[in-house]
Amino acid sequence: MEDQTALFVKMALDGWNAQNKRLNDLVNQLSDEQLSAETAPGRNTGTYLFGHLVAVNDALLPLFGFGPRLYPEYETIFLRNPDKSGLAKPSIAELKAASAKIDAELNAHIAKMQPADWFTKHASVSVEDFAKEPHRNKLNVLLGRTTHMGYHHGQIAYLAGQD
Amino acid sequence: MEDQTALFVKMALDGWNAQNKRLNDLVNQLSDEQLSAETAPGRNTGTYLFGHLVAVNDALLPLFGFGPRLYPEYETIFLRNPDKSGLAKPSIAELKAASAKIDAELNAHIAKMQPADWFTKHASVSVEDFAKEPHRNKLNVLLGRTTHMGYHHGQIAYLAGQD
Repeated sequence: MEDQTALFVKMALDGWNAQNKRLNDLVNQLSDEQLSAETAPGRNTGTYLFGHLVAVNDALLPLFGFGPRLYPEYETIFLRNPDKSGLAKPSIAELKAASAKIDAELNAHIAKMQPADWFTKHASVSVEDFAKEPHRNKLNVLLGRTTHMGYHHGQIAYLAGQD
Repeated sequence: MEDQTALFVKMALDGWNAQNKRLNDLVNQLSDEQLSAETAPGRNTGTYLFGHLVAVNDALLPLFGFGPRLYPEYETIFLRNPDKSGLAKPSIAELKAASAKIDAELNAHIAKMQPADWFTKHASVSVEDFAKEPHRNKLNVLLGRTTHMGYHHGQIAYLAGQD
């Protein structure tokens, strides 16, 4: 059944990559002015949501044991504080460059993984808990992150006049 | 590696169920007046998006070989036509009842499935294509539907003042 393990790792990775690509395509199709706007009156801007998703991807690096975050300052700006925090934010050009660099780093590590590696524990679950709950593995994190990306993608899509 | 197959199926099913529950919790927390409003100016109403997701779940029944759709008329209203189609729509109470009935029907069939059944082909892929692309199985559909639900969930969340 090693083939089946490889098959469902491919399914999960394909899903994550497709969602990540849809998000990047959307962000790249929007002008900086469009992306800076609120996705709905009083709600988060496209820039904040994009930065939030970039920060979440960056956090996968330590979570998967790949290494430290590349942009640790994004955690404060985009994860621990809301859009209207008053904190200085990176420019959209900087965010896009950061996103590309994080994706390249993630993909370089992912390319070296064997299917079985995805079923090992991530950094936020203890050895004891993982023994009892083996579904709390790296692949499960990736599945959850794919849905999370979809959630905010649906909001940013409003800036492009998409349903 | 049968354990690993069962584990992965559990991960995908848990993800789908959790997202489905989050959506239903959100819809139930909104008043009918709130759910009937546009999620953002000029965009789909919460009712339409909920109906859209109910129709997509209903379509899983034939796609997975479980049987015919329970609410075939929803396809015209919520999948083939936009919110402002002018077509008569079911009431929110009817939609919620339909959603519960579809979920119960889906879950009754899912409970009878063995992990390996999830890796069999769904109704929209040919035998020939499936032989070449075995990732186009039922479980992959479920993963895609989870992300799709997340996408519109992020939009309906605006009606509850959530980010």
